[in-house]
Amino acid sequence: MPSPKSLAGRTAIILTVSDRCFAGTQTDLSGPALAHLLTQAGAQIIDALTLPDETAQLIPALHAAASRASLVLTTGGTGLAARDITPEATLAVCTRLVPGLAELIRQDGATRTPFAALSRGVSGIASNCLIINLPGSPEGAESSLRAVLPLLPHALDLLAGHTAHTRER
Amino acid sequence: MPSPKSLAGRTAIILTVSDRCFAGTQTDLSGPALAHLLTQAGAQIIDALTLPDETAQLIPALHAAASRASLVLTTGGTGLAARDITPEATLAVCTRLVPGLAELIRQDGATRTPFAALSRGVSGIASNCLIINLPGSPEGAESSLRAVLPLLPHALDLLAGHTAHTRER
Amino acid sequence: MPSPKSLAGRTAIILTVSDRCFAGTQTDLSGPALAHLLTQAGAQIIDALTLPDETAQLIPALHAAASRASLVLTTGGTGLAARDITPEATLAVCTRLVPGLAELIRQDGATRTPFAALSRGVSGIASNCLIINLPGSPEGAESSLRAVLPLLPHALDLLAGHTAHTRER
Repeated sequence: MPSPKSLAGRTAIILTVSDRCFAGTQTDLSGPALAHLLTQAGAQIIDALTLPDETAQLIPALHAAASRASLVLTTGGTGLAARDITPEATLAVCTRLVPGLAELIRQDGATRTPFAALSRGVSGIASNCLIINLPGSPEGAESSLRAVLPLLPHALDLLAGHTAHTRER
Repeated sequence: MPSPKSLAGRTAIILTVSDRCFAGTQTDLSGPALAHLLTQAGAQIIDALTLPDETAQLIPALHAAASRASLVLTTGGTGLAARDITPEATLAVCTRLVPGLAELIRQDGATRTPFAALSRGVSGIASNCLIINLPGSPEGAESSLRAVLPLLPHALDLLAGHTAHTRER
Repeated sequence: MPSPKSLAGRTAIILTVSDRCFAGTQTDLSGPALAHLLTQAGAQIIDALTLPDETAQLIPALHAAASRASLVLTTGGTGLAARDITPEATLAVCTRLVPGLAELIRQDGATRTPFAALSRGVSGIASNCLIINLPGSPEGAESSLRAVLPLLPHALDLLAGHTAHTRER
C-alpha cells in the first residue's frame, strides 16, 4: 500500500467545471475535497480553478494546466446534460489516452450507484501530464480519486521517465 | 426499481441493420423484440426501419433518427464481419460518447457468452438523442437492452435538460 | 474449450515494440513466448519483428503486417512512458476497433496487478486482420494472450467471412 506521502514532489492542478460554481450560485465542495486528498498524499496543489461548462474556455485551461503540473484533475461536466463537455475538451487536448483509469472510475462508481455507467469521463496524457476526469458530485469525485490514487505515484513516475525501465505489466 | 412506464413521454426509433433482413431473406426478430420491451416501458416507437450494412445509408438514417427521437436503438452490425459497420457509422454521427453503456452491454453479454468481448457496439449522443448499439441476435439485443433499461429514464431526462441539477454521480 | 489446434490455417505476425530490444541491449522474451503459444494453438507465425518505439516505423510495419497475416500481436509500448506509442500507432492503422478485447486484457491484468489499469493497449481491425496490443512484460503478454486466445478462432473466422452467418451475440 502506497505511503500517505506517495505523491511527494508532484504538482497538481484541480479544475472544477461547473456553470453554477463559476457563476457563484453553487459552492464548490468537490474541488476542495480533491485538494485535501491530494495534499494528504503529498502532492503540491499549484492551482485550483473554476470554469464554466464551455469548451472554448476548458480546452485552453487544460492545455495550460497540463504544461504546468504533472497531474490535472477535473471535476464536473462528465454527465449527459447538453452542457457536459468535459470529456470532449479533454479528448481534444490529450495526445494519448489511458482508458483503464476511466474504466476503473466507472467500476468504482458502480459500487455506489448504477448510474455510474452514464459517467462519460476520460483520462489521458498531454504534455507528459496525466489528466483525469472525475464526477462532479463531492462523493463521486472523492470516491473516484481514492480508487485511482494508489496507481498515481507509479503513473507519474512513468510519465516523468523516472522509473527504471521494467517493461510495463 | 423504475416503474414499467418509466419511459413515458419518450420517443424511440429502432434501426435493424442487416443485409439479410433488408433483402428479405431473414426475418427480423430483434427489432420487434426491442420495440416490445420499449413499449412495455412506456416509450412511443415512432419508427422502426431495416437497413443494409452500408455506411452510406446508415449514417444519414442515424442523423435523421436522432433528430426525430430521444432514443435510437440499433441492432446488428456490431461484430467482426467485414460488413459490420454499425459502430463506425454511429461514431461518425455522435458528438459525445457514453462508453459506460457499451461497457455495461459487454459485461451483460459476458454472462451469456465469452464472445461478448467481440461485440464492438458503441453508445453516444447526437442531437440530444441517445444512440445505443445492441447486438444483432434477438437474445443479445433483448438482454442488452434489459441491462441498460433501468438507466434510460434518468439518461433521457438529463439529455432533455429536465432533471433538477444534482451534479451527476 | 477450443482444441489446441484451433488456429490451424491462420497466419500471425508478432511485433515486439521496444527501443531496448531493437538496440540489442535487452533480450526479447515476450515475442518468443507469444510465438510459442500461438504455434501451440496451430497458427503459422509468418514473421516476428522487433521495432523501436517510433511511430514512423511502427505504423508502416503494422500496415504491412496486417496485409500479410490474419492476426498481428504487438508486445510493448502500451504504458505511460513518453515513448510508449504502440496504441496510437495501432489506432492510426485500424479502421474498426474491438474495445472488448482491450477491456478483457485489462481485466485479466487486474487479477495479477492493480497497475493493469495503466495499460493503454487497444485492439482493432485493419485489412481484415485483427491487431491486438499486449503488454510488454513476458508474463503480461502471455497471460493477456491466454485470456483472449479462446475467442480468436471465432474472431478470425468472422473476419475472414468463413462463419455461417448466425448474427453475432
